[in-house]
Amino acid sequence: MSVFDDAHVTLAHGNGGRLMNALIEEIFARHFESPEFDPQLDAAPLQLDPGAEILMTTDGFIVQPLEFPGGDIGSLAVHGTVNDLAVSGARPRYLTLGAIIEEGLELKFLDRIAASAAAAAKEAGVTIIAGDTKVTPRGSGGGLYLTTAGIGEKPRNIRHGMRFIKPGDAVLLSGPVGDHGVAVMLAREEFDLKGDIRSDSANVIALTQALLPLDGLRFMRDPTRGGLATVACEIAAATGRQIRLYESAIPVRPAVASVCDILGYDPYYLACEGRVVAIVAREICDEALARWRALGEGAAAAIIGEVREGAAHVILETEIGGERILEELEDDPLPRIC
Amino acid sequence: MSVFDDAHVTLAHGNGGRLMNALIEEIFARHFESPEFDPQLDAAPLQLDPGAEILMTTDGFIVQPLEFPGGDIGSLAVHGTVNDLAVSGARPRYLTLGAIIEEGLELKFLDRIAASAAAAAKEAGVTIIAGDTKVTPRGSGGGLYLTTAGIGEKPRNIRHGMRFIKPGDAVLLSGPVGDHGVAVMLAREEFDLKGDIRSDSANVIALTQALLPLDGLRFMRDPTRGGLATVACEIAAATGRQIRLYESAIPVRPAVASVCDILGYDPYYLACEGRVVAIVAREICDEALARWRALGEGAAAAIIGEVREGAAHVILETEIGGERILEELEDDPLPRIC
Repeated sequence: MSVFDDAHVTLAHGNGGRLMNALIEEIFARHFESPEFDPQLDAAPLQLDPGAEILMTTDGFIVQPLEFPGGDIGSLAVHGTVNDLAVSGARPRYLTLGAIIEEGLELKFLDRIAASAAAAAKEAGVTIIAGDTKVTPRGSGGGLYLTTAGIGEKPRNIRHGMRFIKPGDAVLLSGPVGDHGVAVMLAREEFDLKGDIRSDSANVIALTQALLPLDGLRFMRDPTRGGLATVACEIAAATGRQIRLYESAIPVRPAVASVCDILGYDPYYLACEGRVVAIVAREICDEALARWRALGEGAAAAIIGEVREGAAHVILETEIGGERILEELEDDPLPRIC
Repeated sequence: MSVFDDAHVTLAHGNGGRLMNALIEEIFARHFESPEFDPQLDAAPLQLDPGAEILMTTDGFIVQPLEFPGGDIGSLAVHGTVNDLAVSGARPRYLTLGAIIEEGLELKFLDRIAASAAAAAKEAGVTIIAGDTKVTPRGSGGGLYLTTAGIGEKPRNIRHGMRFIKPGDAVLLSGPVGDHGVAVMLAREEFDLKGDIRSDSANVIALTQALLPLDGLRFMRDPTRGGLATVACEIAAATGRQIRLYESAIPVRPAVASVCDILGYDPYYLACEGRVVAIVAREICDEALARWRALGEGAAAAIIGEVREGAAHVILETEIGGERILEELEDDPLPRIC
């Protein structure tokens, strides 16, 4: 008997019995295979560097549709949590994956998502060490929700964080903004728009590791929900400094800009899932930029702004020489993009 | 402005902007307050014993209704993950909590659930160190789904696990079975049944810590989804041994037995959320039982069976002297009880 004898997930796949064990063995354990992944264990042992600082984080994923150009909920769930660790200065090591599956989901589809998560984990060098599956009745889920938690190791000599940000620092961005948000939106086919925009969903480990050795690195964050503007607002609020962004320097793909123009979205508020915003000391900004541009995923990196004395606002210097305040997000421009 | 200015969760509470920050600050951060919980951090630092083995686990929760006699989804989400660590021999230390909230959930209700999770964490001695909130559109959730991940520390000299189980070992149970499953089922009010059965949802740290020092402890597991019978089936399958359970010795509350009789459920397959099944060497079973009975939560503990040579089945010796095979669960007897 194989779990694929059934075409779709039933409530019995979540009951703790034979079908649940088959689901876990034939889908999750098969793809997540590692010496550490043992579905028979209640909790899995970690091998951690005793000299490192250990960081932990979690993230939930409710993206619709579950697959989109450039990714799917499985790879996204790995990248999201891996990236929170990476921007914190850690090397991601272990993940757990909790799946809340809606009755009726196609088992072959679930298998494809698990394979995608496993591939993303492998690429990021993390081990999926434990998992859990629950099944909700038809009509009470979005097909599949995932929650990942992650553990990473951070060298103890690395110190960065918002409190190190100073006036005069430069703001760097690793690549174009808005790709993920627009790719997911177009995949919903709610609008009569087509385009070959792919999500930027990816791990940012190489990008973050490239800057960590630099004395003068102040802070890194991945601009996910709420986008670049929200990260800038968080920095302004936490530091009490003004953040100035130069519109002409912020990379936005023409196709993303067009979709945003038509639908009235601001690309600076759209989620990225594979970009990094970094604040660095002015003296090292060229070196930081060079390191990013030497990487494929940082080829379009740019210095996009600076930190100044002054009221804690985010000010966009527009291409025509004006100024616009980027406010904290109030209404929801684009739900369920992560 | 307070998050409670709104009565209900809206999609904007999940967008990364002002309302989401207010939700996190005023509900989650307020209840989970600790030196380590900083909602501004992408990942939180753990303080771990460098000499200990570090264990990790995760569990998702979709129970309906969200509150039931003896608990709610918040306390359950803490107990579930804490208990997976505890039965593995670890002292639970840190939790993450991912919340998938359905648009329209009452904010005061969410606040109550967060308070309950915080109280359960405090009682278990664990710190909720990181969280995440997502909001799904009305009609695509069950009000609230939670996923917790946990980290625990296990002394390196403790060795137990299924592979240590031997013929002749005794099976111990820490208290009555079926309370949680029946309490949740009655709380649904789908059946015209009333009863004052409370869930046994609780952490099992004292129960597990009481047995860990005993040379001769083989294995522990908490009988959640699928209940006592499923744990016994898992042991039989993994060890290739026969598990014999004595019906007359297994504690079942009369009220639980009555409800099961009426509705045709077998209490041995119903979930517990605060019980432990332990396998111990015959020589120490009296000592183990005495240790459990000395605890309030183990007052009704009993020796309920034994491990034998023979085919890998679970055999129930019935009160009238017969034998019945307890099979692995096939259909779903009671969905969404955890």
